[in-house]
Amino acid sequence: MKYEKIKTQAYAANVQIVDAGLVLLTWGNASVRDPGEEVFAIKPSGVSYRDLKADMMVVVSIESGEVVEGELRPSSDTPTHAELYRRFRQIGGIVHTHSNYAVAFAQARRDIPLLGTTHADHFRFPIPVTRDMTDCEVEGAYEKNTGALIVETFEKRSLDPLAVPGVLVASHGPFAWGRDGRSAVENAIVLEAVARMACESRLVNPDILPAPACLTEKHFLRKHGPGAYYGQQ
Amino acid sequence: MKYEKIKTQAYAANVQIVDAGLVLLTWGNASVRDPGEEVFAIKPSGVSYRDLKADMMVVVSIESGEVVEGELRPSSDTPTHAELYRRFRQIGGIVHTHSNYAVAFAQARRDIPLLGTTHADHFRFPIPVTRDMTDCEVEGAYEKNTGALIVETFEKRSLDPLAVPGVLVASHGPFAWGRDGRSAVENAIVLEAVARMACESRLVNPDILPAPACLTEKHFLRKHGPGAYYGQQ
Amino acid sequence: MKYEKIKTQAYAANVQIVDAGLVLLTWGNASVRDPGEEVFAIKPSGVSYRDLKADMMVVVSIESGEVVEGELRPSSDTPTHAELYRRFRQIGGIVHTHSNYAVAFAQARRDIPLLGTTHADHFRFPIPVTRDMTDCEVEGAYEKNTGALIVETFEKRSLDPLAVPGVLVASHGPFAWGRDGRSAVENAIVLEAVARMACESRLVNPDILPAPACLTEKHFLRKHGPGAYYGQQ
Amino acid sequence: MKYEKIKTQAYAANVQIVDAGLVLLTWGNASVRDPGEEVFAIKPSGVSYRDLKADMMVVVSIESGEVVEGELRPSSDTPTHAELYRRFRQIGGIVHTHSNYAVAFAQARRDIPLLGTTHADHFRFPIPVTRDMTDCEVEGAYEKNTGALIVETFEKRSLDPLAVPGVLVASHGPFAWGRDGRSAVENAIVLEAVARMACESRLVNPDILPAPACLTEKHFLRKHGPGAYYGQQ
Repeated sequence: MKYEKIKTQAYAANVQIVDAGLVLLTWGNASVRDPGEEVFAIKPSGVSYRDLKADMMVVVSIESGEVVEGELRPSSDTPTHAELYRRFRQIGGIVHTHSNYAVAFAQARRDIPLLGTTHADHFRFPIPVTRDMTDCEVEGAYEKNTGALIVETFEKRSLDPLAVPGVLVASHGPFAWGRDGRSAVENAIVLEAVARMACESRLVNPDILPAPACLTEKHFLRKHGPGAYYGQQ
Repeated sequence: MKYEKIKTQAYAANVQIVDAGLVLLTWGNASVRDPGEEVFAIKPSGVSYRDLKADMMVVVSIESGEVVEGELRPSSDTPTHAELYRRFRQIGGIVHTHSNYAVAFAQARRDIPLLGTTHADHFRFPIPVTRDMTDCEVEGAYEKNTGALIVETFEKRSLDPLAVPGVLVASHGPFAWGRDGRSAVENAIVLEAVARMACESRLVNPDILPAPACLTEKHFLRKHGPGAYYGQQ
Repeated sequence: MKYEKIKTQAYAANVQIVDAGLVLLTWGNASVRDPGEEVFAIKPSGVSYRDLKADMMVVVSIESGEVVEGELRPSSDTPTHAELYRRFRQIGGIVHTHSNYAVAFAQARRDIPLLGTTHADHFRFPIPVTRDMTDCEVEGAYEKNTGALIVETFEKRSLDPLAVPGVLVASHGPFAWGRDGRSAVENAIVLEAVARMACESRLVNPDILPAPACLTEKHFLRKHGPGAYYGQQ
Repeated sequence: MKYEKIKTQAYAANVQIVDAGLVLLTWGNASVRDPGEEVFAIKPSGVSYRDLKADMMVVVSIESGEVVEGELRPSSDTPTHAELYRRFRQIGGIVHTHSNYAVAFAQARRDIPLLGTTHADHFRFPIPVTRDMTDCEVEGAYEKNTGALIVETFEKRSLDPLAVPGVLVASHGPFAWGRDGRSAVENAIVLEAVARMACESRLVNPDILPAPACLTEKHFLRKHGPGAYYGQQ
């Protein structure tokens, strides 16, 4: 029962993304890292959310990608999660979905622009879209390369993954993350909501400009970092 | 009770398309083929989904189109189903709906373009829209001709109906299918979802291009065919 | 208890438009005509749908517009209903809502174009929008004049109100009707659905053309009139 | 238990905006003023709506902004509410949300235009968007300055806050208010609904014009003021 805690948390995160309306059919998966061990728990591949139970979660080694505990095959996106945990040391939970508006931006190969305080409360900058993968990257270790592409995107733009806790993989969809499973779920919810707001803002005004930086910085820092004063502590 | 199994499956498929939000009023019907006999079970015409029961399903001969079992009149679209079963030998379930975004593409007389992995996981190529029917086709055996038009569309484009398990009938709406009732329902759900994503992707970027073929092939083959590695087997 | 039947039917219609998601707050009302007497039952004004009961329905004379039975004040739109019953002798139920997409077309002052079979199954032609009311019409017997404007719209276009059982009042919203309360509700649901489909069809293809007349005639006549073969009789 | 009544009302208003679908996560807050005392009750900051109870509401002085009763920290937007109560003497309830279409207009920095009777029944004129805040305003007493900016917007346009009971703060989102908590909630619901209708009206007709003033005046005055005749009194 060594990994019971992260299996419970990963199960909860998988249930929450369904309850939040981010998942159709089996299109989504959530994982939670063990803060002590170099492993994470993730949803098994292709299992219906209706049949899912906490003890079906599969525990995988971050370093080797091998299954450490569990009888089912882990999500086919497991190597992407592993790569993100390996390279983004600060994150403790990851959520992947095909939520509608986030996919629309990913398919359109456009960043989600920073248009207001809703976005800035959770994501300090625009939410980036990756470049297209090369044929070689797709034909090789595809899922691992997807993770590497996300890391490359953040490195090229000098982005802190906790300041911008999500990304759009071009022609595919969103990944979101956080310090733990709960915050990864919250960021996936926010990513979808701000994608929708951005889409409809452009309908109202096609020539829309980003929000003033002073305002967005204020909102991000009101909730994050040493000077934060939102919430109860 | 010879046809109890397909009646139960056809009933389940009809209930599932309602639960999935694809059906308003009585706008939809699902059928399931008997793998041994040359018959299929289909929803009766115009019956409210609230009143529907498994034993109301009507069993129809694929070849003659005649009712083999059942006291109610079968769906008015029955000759379309029969024609599809006759010509697409591999399929075992068919779903017809008037789901919103699929109808939008059908009315716009545009294919649903292949913009990302959500689409490619289930449909290997763009989802085609038929040509308009001629006056003669409409005034003749309309429902049978609708089926023939779908087959013509697939033949002209050399499409395998299991690689692209759905179509848009111009100015009308979607038909989806699969190896059985369950997969036909799933493909109808996916068709609506990717139609919506395509519609909103174009709002975000009117000059959007299709996803790279290498990526979409990877995703289709990850789930289908001999090299598939998605799911539990 | 003379009017119990129409009060029950009018109450049911009011509940159904809420259940169908056509009504926000108290924005909607439904009425049912007595086939024998020259009266109709309608929702009381401004009463919350949660508090509504069948015996609160108000019975009003078609000719005089006076309350015949009931203790509450009838809907402020009552004179519109009365005018429609007076002039459209074939109709037995009326529904008014502010459903979202129908209002969008009414505010845009555009007909809902006839783009496909979903529309044609219930409305034989485009759903017309009225002209703007004159200041004089607004400042006079406003609600009665709204009814007169609807009738004028149908007369100018030589439309049969049972072939096109609904209208958009410019800068206001939809009215739908039918032979009885149940069909009026159904037509209000269809009107909203086809408004949405038309809106999104134009997003997919801004140069969209109407559906071929042969096809739309086929669908309307498949469900209506002497040659109908949809449903169980 | 001096403030029990306004705490109960503020709690009810916070629950109602969630039930109305205006709130995602913790993005929203409602307050109710005490008609006798110069205080108001407001939601505590960052508390999940699921965990919220009436006795958690925080009572704050309008003049000093200090907490008068309650153990939790009040909403971070409390100084905005205080400023609005101080300057708009007629209002007794305030609602702030990040509802989707209202945010779209706020981010687009566009007024919600007066396109029809749905809008005019509750808001006599277009719903204004504020100017951008200056860096200085953001870096100073940000939340108080947000309230002052709203008041400035109404003063510059000579608007009565009870004739137009809501506003869009640029790049942020909507505030709505009313004579009490219940009417503030209702106006927040209407604001979101008319924002959506306006967005979709422009999709249908990009060259849409405002509704005739005669018609919108008629509708506003049918529901408000001495000649009102909507509802039961």
